[in-house]
Amino acid sequence: MSLIVKKFGGTSVAGKERMLNAAEIIKKTYLKNNKIVVVVSAQGNTTDELLEKAWQININPSKRELDVLLCAGEQISMALLAIALEKLGIEAISLTGWQAGFKTCKSYGNARIEGIYPERILKELSKNKVVIVAGFQGINDSEDLTTMGRGGSDTSAVALAAALNADECRIYTDVDGVYTANPHVVPNAEFLEIVSYGDMIKLASLGTQVLNKRSVEIAQKYGVEISVLSSLNRKNPQTTVKEVESINSKTIKGIALDNSLFLIHMDKSEKKRELFERFSEEKITVSNVICNKNEINFIINKSHLNVIYGILSGINFNINSDISKISVVGLGKKSHMEIADQMLEALKDISIEFVLIEDSISVIVSMEESEIAVRRIHDKFFTKNCVKVNE
Amino acid sequence: MSLIVKKFGGTSVAGKERMLNAAEIIKKTYLKNNKIVVVVSAQGNTTDELLEKAWQININPSKRELDVLLCAGEQISMALLAIALEKLGIEAISLTGWQAGFKTCKSYGNARIEGIYPERILKELSKNKVVIVAGFQGINDSEDLTTMGRGGSDTSAVALAAALNADECRIYTDVDGVYTANPHVVPNAEFLEIVSYGDMIKLASLGTQVLNKRSVEIAQKYGVEISVLSSLNRKNPQTTVKEVESINSKTIKGIALDNSLFLIHMDKSEKKRELFERFSEEKITVSNVICNKNEINFIINKSHLNVIYGILSGINFNINSDISKISVVGLGKKSHMEIADQMLEALKDISIEFVLIEDSISVIVSMEESEIAVRRIHDKFFTKNCVKVNE
Repeated sequence: MSLIVKKFGGTSVAGKERMLNAAEIIKKTYLKNNKIVVVVSAQGNTTDELLEKAWQININPSKRELDVLLCAGEQISMALLAIALEKLGIEAISLTGWQAGFKTCKSYGNARIEGIYPERILKELSKNKVVIVAGFQGINDSEDLTTMGRGGSDTSAVALAAALNADECRIYTDVDGVYTANPHVVPNAEFLEIVSYGDMIKLASLGTQVLNKRSVEIAQKYGVEISVLSSLNRKNPQTTVKEVESINSKTIKGIALDNSLFLIHMDKSEKKRELFERFSEEKITVSNVICNKNEINFIINKSHLNVIYGILSGINFNINSDISKISVVGLGKKSHMEIADQMLEALKDISIEFVLIEDSISVIVSMEESEIAVRRIHDKFFTKNCVKVNE
Repeated sequence: MSLIVKKFGGTSVAGKERMLNAAEIIKKTYLKNNKIVVVVSAQGNTTDELLEKAWQININPSKRELDVLLCAGEQISMALLAIALEKLGIEAISLTGWQAGFKTCKSYGNARIEGIYPERILKELSKNKVVIVAGFQGINDSEDLTTMGRGGSDTSAVALAAALNADECRIYTDVDGVYTANPHVVPNAEFLEIVSYGDMIKLASLGTQVLNKRSVEIAQKYGVEISVLSSLNRKNPQTTVKEVESINSKTIKGIALDNSLFLIHMDKSEKKRELFERFSEEKITVSNVICNKNEINFIINKSHLNVIYGILSGINFNINSDISKISVVGLGKKSHMEIADQMLEALKDISIEFVLIEDSISVIVSMEESEIAVRRIHDKFFTKNCVKVNE
C-alpha cells in the first residue's frame, strides 16, 4: 500500500466527461489498495471567468476579495470530483485549503505556504476515503482566505506530498509530460522522460507551463519525485522530475516560449530606484532589465498589469504586450556565446528586440513571429545533427 | 447611528449592474453614519446551475458535497459585492458563513443555526467597514460546510439581526413587498404595508416566496422587525413584518400559490407507517396527506424528489408534478366552511383535485389552471365587495 498524491489541472476536470475520467483514474489506483489524496484546480477557464466578473465591476479590486472570489473555483471543482467518485462507488470527501490545513503567509494573490497541518486529511484517509483537497488556496493568520498565484495547485500538491511523506506525486495535465519545446508549436519536439529539478525550474521560470516553478523548488528541497502525465491520453509515457547527474544538465534541455510578458519602456531619467522599490514591495518580479544610456526597458508578467499601472501613474512610459520571450534551457555556463551565436543564426530573418544572456539565453521577438522562431531554434539544436554543447 | 442588517437576494445581485446597484443602496445608508452588515445570496440562478452540474455527474450526490458545492455560490457573490463597494470608495470585507461565526447542526442541506459567534463581524464593524456575510451557509461541529436550504439567506439575515441586536433588518428583493397575491399573477393584488408574523409564516409555508418561513419564525421569537423592499424600484413602499393586534389576523390576508409540490399517489395497502418513518428520518415534510378507503395521496416539495425516489423504490406509485396548491391565508378558525364555500364557488368551472381544510384552506388544481384560479379567488375576497370574515 502506497500513499499517492495526485493533482488534476483545470483542463483535466473541465466538464462532466473529464470529471468522470479523472474519477476513473483515481478509482483505478484506489482499487490497487493505495491511499490517495487528490489536489484539484478550478475547472477549465473558471479562474479567468471569475477574474473577468470582478474586473467588469471594478478594474482595481482588493487582493483579499479577489482571493475570496477565486477560492470558490477550486471549491466547486473539488465537490464535483467527490460527487463523481461517489458515482463510481468510491467514498470521497472534499476539503477546502483551510480544512486541509494549508497555512500561508499574509500576502493575498501570491501567498507562500508556511505549513501544512494534515490532521483532517489523515483522519479521513484512515477511514479509507479518497481525500480531495482544493489546490491553490490556504488560510493566513487572520483566518482569511489566500491564494498562491497561477499554477498554485502544483505547489499545493508537491507541498502536500512532502508533508505527508507520500510515496508518489503524480501531476495530471493535458499534455503527456515535458518536451524539448511545446509540441503544439514544434511538432517534432522530443519527449523528455527525465528532467532534473534544476532544468525544470529553469523551463518553468522561462515560460514552460507544464509545472509551476515554485512547486519544483519545493520538490527539490524535500526530494519529492514528480511524475507529469496526461489525464486524457493514458497510454503515453510520463516525465519524471527528479535529482539527476549533473552531466545531463550540460546538454540543451528545451526551448521555452513565454507569451505572458509585457515589455515596458521608459526614459532613463525617470526615478528608477524608487520604481524598483515599489515593485519589490508589491512582490512583482522584474524578469529582465535592459538599460542603455538614455532608456530603460524591463519585462514583467502580465498578471501584474493592474498594479503596474498604479505604480507608473504620472510617469512617461510605453507598454508593449505583443512580445514573446524564447529561451534555451539547460546549458552549461561556458558555452553561452556559442549558443547565442547559433540562436541568432537560426533567427537571422526575424526581428529581435533584445537578446538576454543570463542564467539562460533568451531572445525577445514579436509574438507574431514567436512560433516560427521557436521552430527555427528547436531545429538548430534538436535535429539529427543536434549540437550538444559541452559533451 | 444605527446597526442595520441588509439582505440582498439572488436577483438583486445578478450581474454587474445589479451588483453595483446593491452597492449604491448600501453606500447611501453607510454615509448616513450607520453600521451595516450585509447578507447576500448567490447571484441569479447560480445555485440551480451548480445543482445541475452535480446532477449531470451523479443523480444522487451526497448532501455533504452538495453543500460544499453550493457554498461557493454565496462566496462568489459576497466577494463581488465587496469589490463593488470598493469601486464606490467604501471599505468592505466579505466573510463566509464560518468566518462570520455561523454554527449549525450537523444535517447537510437543511441545517439549523445553533449559534452565531459574531466576534469577527464586530471587529470589522469597529473598523468602520461594511461587513458582507455569505447567507445560507454555516459550519457544523466537524468543521464541515453546511447550508440551510432554499431561502436560507433570509434566515441568516434575521438570525444575525437578532444576534447583533440590530436596529433594523431590511430584506431587499425583486418585489416591493408582500401583496394579497402574487402581482405577476393577479395584477390588482393589494399591497400590504404591515403583516403579522403569524400571517407571514402561513403565507410563506403555503408558497409565498417573498420571505423564507423559518426566518419569520426566528424574527417572531426574537422580536426582529423585518422590512421587505425592492432593490430595483426604490421609490415604492415596503412591507413591515412585525407583531400586530390579533383583530387584523381575522381578515383574509392573502392568496398563496405554490408550484413547488408533487402529488404522490399510491394504493393504501402499501406500508404507510414505514414510509412516513423514512420521510421523518430524512427530514422530509409531508405537507398534506389525503386518504380514502383504497388509496393514499400525499404532497411533498419537489426539492425532495431525489430522496423520494430512493424511499419509494419497489413500491407502486404515481407522481403528479403538474399540480398547484392555492391557499387562503389569514382567516379565523370558525369561518372555514364559509370560506371554502366561497372558494369553490369562485372555482366552479375549474377541476379541483382536492380541497384541504386545515390551519388554512387550500385547493389542489392543475398547474395549467392555477393562475386563473388564483385570480378568481382573489377577486372573490378582495373586490370592492370584499367579504371580510368575522368582523
